[in-house]
Amino acid sequence: MRTIHVKTESADYPVYVGSDFLPQLSRHLRKLSGDALPRLFILTSPEIWALWGEALLSGLPKEQHPSILFLPPGERYKRLAEVERLAGELAAAGADRSSVLIAFGGGIIGDVGGFLSAIYMRGIDYIQMPTTLLAQVDSSVGGKTGTNLSAGKNLIGSFHHPRAVFADVATLQTLPARELRAGLFESIKAGIIRDAKLFRFLERNAEAVLQRDMDALKYVIGASVRMKAEVVGIDERESGLRMILNFGHTIGHAIEAATGYRRLLHGEAIAWGMLAALQIALGRGTVTAQEADRITQTIHAYGPLRPFRSSAGLLLGAAGRDKKNRAGKRRFVLPQGIGDAVVVENVTDAEMRDAVEWTLAAARQSEQKTEARGR
Amino acid sequence: MRTIHVKTESADYPVYVGSDFLPQLSRHLRKLSGDALPRLFILTSPEIWALWGEALLSGLPKEQHPSILFLPPGERYKRLAEVERLAGELAAAGADRSSVLIAFGGGIIGDVGGFLSAIYMRGIDYIQMPTTLLAQVDSSVGGKTGTNLSAGKNLIGSFHHPRAVFADVATLQTLPARELRAGLFESIKAGIIRDAKLFRFLERNAEAVLQRDMDALKYVIGASVRMKAEVVGIDERESGLRMILNFGHTIGHAIEAATGYRRLLHGEAIAWGMLAALQIALGRGTVTAQEADRITQTIHAYGPLRPFRSSAGLLLGAAGRDKKNRAGKRRFVLPQGIGDAVVVENVTDAEMRDAVEWTLAAARQSEQKTEARGR
Ligand SMILES: [Zn+2]
Ligand SMILES: [Zn+2]
Repeated sequence: MRTIHVKTESADYPVYVGSDFLPQLSRHLRKLSGDALPRLFILTSPEIWALWGEALLSGLPKEQHPSILFLPPGERYKRLAEVERLAGELAAAGADRSSVLIAFGGGIIGDVGGFLSAIYMRGIDYIQMPTTLLAQVDSSVGGKTGTNLSAGKNLIGSFHHPRAVFADVATLQTLPARELRAGLFESIKAGIIRDAKLFRFLERNAEAVLQRDMDALKYVIGASVRMKAEVVGIDERESGLRMILNFGHTIGHAIEAATGYRRLLHGEAIAWGMLAALQIALGRGTVTAQEADRITQTIHAYGPLRPFRSSAGLLLGAAGRDKKNRAGKRRFVLPQGIGDAVVVENVTDAEMRDAVEWTLAAARQSEQKTEARGR
Repeated sequence: MRTIHVKTESADYPVYVGSDFLPQLSRHLRKLSGDALPRLFILTSPEIWALWGEALLSGLPKEQHPSILFLPPGERYKRLAEVERLAGELAAAGADRSSVLIAFGGGIIGDVGGFLSAIYMRGIDYIQMPTTLLAQVDSSVGGKTGTNLSAGKNLIGSFHHPRAVFADVATLQTLPARELRAGLFESIKAGIIRDAKLFRFLERNAEAVLQRDMDALKYVIGASVRMKAEVVGIDERESGLRMILNFGHTIGHAIEAATGYRRLLHGEAIAWGMLAALQIALGRGTVTAQEADRITQTIHAYGPLRPFRSSAGLLLGAAGRDKKNRAGKRRFVLPQGIGDAVVVENVTDAEMRDAVEWTLAAARQSEQKTEARGR
């Protein structure tokens, strides 16, 4: 088991990375809350519960009888109406301020469960048990919770840190391969912006990682979480350093928006966004051609990158609306070599256009390759 | 102008009590945010805006053009669905993280506006401009924001403190007399639990206060806010001292719930709840007969107390479900003389029943008097 401590201005909690949390859950929870277990409520998805619900219940004492709350899968249920329904179920089941919610599932379960915990009775404790790679390496850490509006993703939310995160790599064994790969792009991002050793590991061990070797996964998840915990510990509210976590996300978010959030998984869009940002970095010389090559190779090693179609106009428009752009300034994250990154505010419209057009061309090429393979 | 500073673990902001904030709003806002005014969004009710909208706009520079968001009056609009609608309007109007919301209205506007600000883009700044006495002396201070669920009031919410509170007594001139009186019961509460001087002022100056003498109102509001600011400064999250603010509220909330939140205004129910709690205090000797008499007289001086009908069973059931009762313990606030109060956990079922039955009898008596006057 690896333990990483997240320590921010407003919170201090452990992230545990291991492979046997489910069958021993009550022992682990007692470490947090002492002998008397609080009343537990579990928010999960029907899929995850069908696969892992029994294992989780086996780790709780029989007298616990946790209430199980379900959120259907899909971004369209990440809405306030569902939060209200779930809060009503909590109230009906008698949840009070001393109750604890366990968010057991992927990123949406974590975001909604965290937000529900943030606002139910003005805040109750919750525990993250992320079951996807993306949630384990990224969204379960850092305290961002929330829901979407029709007007945009994650426009509603709170900063509300969990009491603890249990990232169990055993649950990754049932994760669809495409989701595993998509999540790993956030780990590659973590390596590029702040952890050269993690990057090198991912570069050299793609096969073991993709075959879900437990030790390889524990290392990758632990290092990714440590990187994020350090950054969030220094800058909880994203006024400075935390911005670097958005490497690949300006154009990545634009691709997600321009393709209606349906074509690509988040990590896949971020992979394209990182390649796009890399073009700007290469043009400015903040990475060498050799470094850019290693980054590109490694991203492709975790591919294939799913192609998409869009237009430069659509992508540039969506990038301009990205909510990371404060007070009209376009903040952009560029790698500086491998293992370091900077936030700049002077990326020009021409650089943006070139990067976006390069990406569209690369996506077209990838589509042709896919078609050629298909024949 | 009186200025009270609220200083808690998580916030530090001024409450201004005065009579000319509206026409000079931009000058006051500049004191908070420096020369460049932020983009302003105003949440208000149609009624308040019809009465005071022009005055408020006259205090802003012409180029400001704040967006006005409306919430219809009534508890039934204090719901997540309305928060979602309002967040959508903020997004459509281009509100970003640097925008500031002004909550301009009564307690519901403040609760919903504060909560909307707490969760829009994970938190934006907001300013309270309460226009009812209840909101000025109580709900605008302390950082509690939120909405109702079908299952109960204020079950959803956040702690989110405003950047500043502007309590303008001029806006009280258009407040219905019944609402003025109801709000003053919270000031009487403030006096009883922690400020003997405020209590004495209210005891001796009922006429001036009820005739809305500006200076008398400023004193009462300033002292009430100071009391609450001190308590919240010591115990922001209601783990100890803040409980005393619930004097009169255990049975008061039960009366509100048992009468469907329609018959009585909040302050009116709290007045009955204080009289009920006083019976328990009198029985235990934590107040003398003479002190109890002064308290009773003063409460009636701000009456008449609106009668209600219910049953001991209904009221005791509702009091048992009150969410202030943690982990099965019934916490109850009792005055200790005038100007001090204690939280006890050993109020017996018999004491509760006697207090509730005394109150029901008093309410019946008051109804008969009202009828007699009506003849
Ligand atoms: Zn991401
Ligand atoms: Zn009250």
